[in-house]
Amino acid sequence: MFLPVSLALLSALTPTASFAQSEAPAIVEDFRPSSLNQPGQEYPQVNSQGYVRFRVNAPGAQSVKASLGLGGQGGTVLSKAVDGSWIGTSSGPLDEGFHYYHLEVDGGVFNDPGTLNFYGSTRWESGIEIPAHDADFYALKDVPHGNVQQVLFPSPSTGIQRRAFVYTPPGYAANQAARYPVLYLQHGWGEDETAWSNQGHANLIMDNLIADKATRPFIIVMTYGMTNVIRPGDPGGLARFDIKPFQTVLVDELIPYIDRHFRTLPDRDHRAMAGLSMGGMETKMIATANVDTFGYVGLFSGGTFSPDDVAKAPSFREKVKLAFVSYGSRELERRAVAPPGAPPFDPVANHKALKASGFNSVFYVSPNTAHEFLSWRRSLHEFAPLLFRD
Amino acid sequence: MFLPVSLALLSALTPTASFAQSEAPAIVEDFRPSSLNQPGQEYPQVNSQGYVRFRVNAPGAQSVKASLGLGGQGGTVLSKAVDGSWIGTSSGPLDEGFHYYHLEVDGGVFNDPGTLNFYGSTRWESGIEIPAHDADFYALKDVPHGNVQQVLFPSPSTGIQRRAFVYTPPGYAANQAARYPVLYLQHGWGEDETAWSNQGHANLIMDNLIADKATRPFIIVMTYGMTNVIRPGDPGGLARFDIKPFQTVLVDELIPYIDRHFRTLPDRDHRAMAGLSMGGMETKMIATANVDTFGYVGLFSGGTFSPDDVAKAPSFREKVKLAFVSYGSRELERRAVAPPGAPPFDPVANHKALKASGFNSVFYVSPNTAHEFLSWRRSLHEFAPLLFRD
Repeated sequence: MFLPVSLALLSALTPTASFAQSEAPAIVEDFRPSSLNQPGQEYPQVNSQGYVRFRVNAPGAQSVKASLGLGGQGGTVLSKAVDGSWIGTSSGPLDEGFHYYHLEVDGGVFNDPGTLNFYGSTRWESGIEIPAHDADFYALKDVPHGNVQQVLFPSPSTGIQRRAFVYTPPGYAANQAARYPVLYLQHGWGEDETAWSNQGHANLIMDNLIADKATRPFIIVMTYGMTNVIRPGDPGGLARFDIKPFQTVLVDELIPYIDRHFRTLPDRDHRAMAGLSMGGMETKMIATANVDTFGYVGLFSGGTFSPDDVAKAPSFREKVKLAFVSYGSRELERRAVAPPGAPPFDPVANHKALKASGFNSVFYVSPNTAHEFLSWRRSLHEFAPLLFRD
Repeated sequence: MFLPVSLALLSALTPTASFAQSEAPAIVEDFRPSSLNQPGQEYPQVNSQGYVRFRVNAPGAQSVKASLGLGGQGGTVLSKAVDGSWIGTSSGPLDEGFHYYHLEVDGGVFNDPGTLNFYGSTRWESGIEIPAHDADFYALKDVPHGNVQQVLFPSPSTGIQRRAFVYTPPGYAANQAARYPVLYLQHGWGEDETAWSNQGHANLIMDNLIADKATRPFIIVMTYGMTNVIRPGDPGGLARFDIKPFQTVLVDELIPYIDRHFRTLPDRDHRAMAGLSMGGMETKMIATANVDTFGYVGLFSGGTFSPDDVAKAPSFREKVKLAFVSYGSRELERRAVAPPGAPPFDPVANHKALKASGFNSVFYVSPNTAHEFLSWRRSLHEFAPLLFRD
C-alpha cells in the first residue's frame, strides 16, 4: 500500500499546480509596468500573455485584493511578501485593452496607488492597459495633433455652468476659413465627459485617421450625459430613465453654444451623435426624436436599430444617412443566452433586415473584447471614416 | 476629603476635554462635504471653523490615518466606529484654501476614496478645500468663460510629443482679428501641467478678472517643468538642477509652437513668465537668461530678485518691465528664522532696494496662507492686472 498512499499525499499537496500545468501554459516572466501607471511606478505590471501582476505596499494589512482577474472569479487575491508588500498575479490572461479596477484593503475600497485614475462606476477608478495587437491606431505619434479643450457653457435648464470637452482637428486654428462637421460623442453609465479623451483616446484616434487621410477632419464634442441618476442594483432604474433633461442640455443649450463658438457646419448633414453603452441608449432616444438635428447615428455596445424602431421614428429613414451599431465579440457571445424576461435581442438580424430594406446600416464587431473601452476605441475608428461624406 | 477626590477623578477622566475647552472654542457641528469630493461622496467634510472630518470605510483595518491635520503634528489619527468605518477630526482648524493629503491604511499610502485627485508630490493625491473668505475671485460664475485646451507639441530635444494646456480668454474665437499676449505659467516641484487649472483655477481667475475689466485678456500656457528629477530627501538635488533641458523645451520648442498655432503678439513686451515654488526658481533662471523673450516676470513663493541678481543679468533692468514676487504670510513667518547654512533671505528688503533703485518691483503677501495653492491663486489674481499695460 506504500505507493498509492504516497501518490494520494502528493495529490493533496499540489492539486491546483498539477491542474494548472495541464490546462494553461506557464506564465512568462516578462512583466513590465502598465502604460497607465503613475510616473515612476513599477506596479501594476503586464506580461506578454496579458497576465497582470499587482504589488501593493500595506505592511499592516490583513487582506488585499484587486477587483481585476478573470470574469466571474472575483478578482485577484494578493499574498503578503516578506518585505510587507502584497503581491498577486491574475489567474489568467486578460483581454487586450483598457480595464477599470480597484483594490480592497481590509474591506475598504481604494485605488491602486500605482496607477492613474479614470472616471467610471461613478468614481475615479484605477486603470490598466493590456497592450493590444492593433494599439497603433490610438498611439500618440509624431503626426499633427488636434487639441482637446475644456469648454464651460451656460445651462439655464439646469441652472449651472456645465463642462464639455471639444476636440478640434489639426489645422483648425490655421484654416480660419474652414468650417467643420461635429460629432457629439457620449460616455457610458458611471462615466463622464472625461472618458472619451482619457480612456478612449478619441483625440489620438482622430489625429491618426486624419494623418492617414482616412477620415474627413471634424470636431468632436463630449459632455456629461447625466446618466448617474440610475443606481447600480436598481433593475427598474433604466426603464424609469428620463431622457428629457439631458436632451434639453444637448439639443437646446450645448449645440447652439458650439455652433456659436466654433467654426461648425451647423446643419443635420454635418452633425452626428454616437455613444457607448448607456450613451448609445441616449443616442438612440435623442437621435430618433430629433431627425432634423443629427444625420448620422452610432450605437457602440448600446442597443440596436430594429426595422420597427426605424418605422416608428418619423422621417428617420429619409433623413438619417447612417445607423452604425457595434459590439465587442464577447458581448454577443454572452447575449446569445438572453436573461429571463429580456426582450429578444439580435443586433445582427436587425442590421440585416435594415440593410435589406435599403437603409444604410453598418454593423461592426470588435474581436475578442467585451463591454470595455477597446471595443469603443475600435468602434470610433470604424465609425469616423463613414461620416460626413458629402 | 470627599470633594477633592471627586474633582481629581473627573480631571483624570477628561483631561484633554478640559484642556481643549480652556484653549480653543468648541468644534461647531456644521460639517459639510468638501467642494472637492467625488460626486455623491459625503466625506471628507469641513466645518465653518476650518476643521476637517474624515470618514473612511475599512472594517478590517488596524490603523487609519490622514496626513492632514495641523503642521508638525503628523496628521489625524482616525478611530474605528461601530459600523466598521474610521472617523477622525483634525486637531485644529486648517488654513483657508487647498490642501493635498493622503491616507495611511495599515502602513500603506492610499488616496481617500471620497475626494478628487490632484497631481502633487509626484503622485495623484487627495485634495480638500477649506472655503476661503475671498473665494469669489476663483469661483465658477455665470460670466463668459475662456477655454482650457490640451495641446500636444513636438519636442525634438526630448524626442517625444509633449503636452501643454492653453487658456484662451473669452472672445478668442469670436474676435478673429485680435491677437493676444501670453503668460507662461509654471507649477511647482512634484506637480505637472494640470496643476494651475485643477488646483489653481487659473482659468476661472482670469474669466472673473476679465468680466470685471480688471485685466487685459491674455493667453496662459502651462506645461510640465521637468522638475521631478529632484527627489525628496536629496538636499543637494536643487543645487544640481540643470535648467537647460526645460529651457530648451520652453524657449526653443513650445513658444514657437504657440506663436504658430495661436493668435499671439509674439514679442517680449507681450510675453510673461511666472511660476510657483520651484517653477519660480525656473522662471528666474530662464527669464534672466532670456531678457529678449520675457518682458514680465513673476515668482510666487519661489525666490526673490535682489539688486545683485538684477545687476548680474545683462539688460534685465532695461528690458524687463515688472518683477513680481509674492509669498504666503506663513512662509515669511517661518523663514524669519533661517535654517543653518542657508543664504540670507529677505525678500522684503530686496523688493525695497529694487524699487528704490527705480525698478518696477511689486511685492505681495497672501494673508494667513502657507506654501500652498491659495497663496498662488491670490498671487495670479494680483499679478495678472499688472501685465501687458501698453
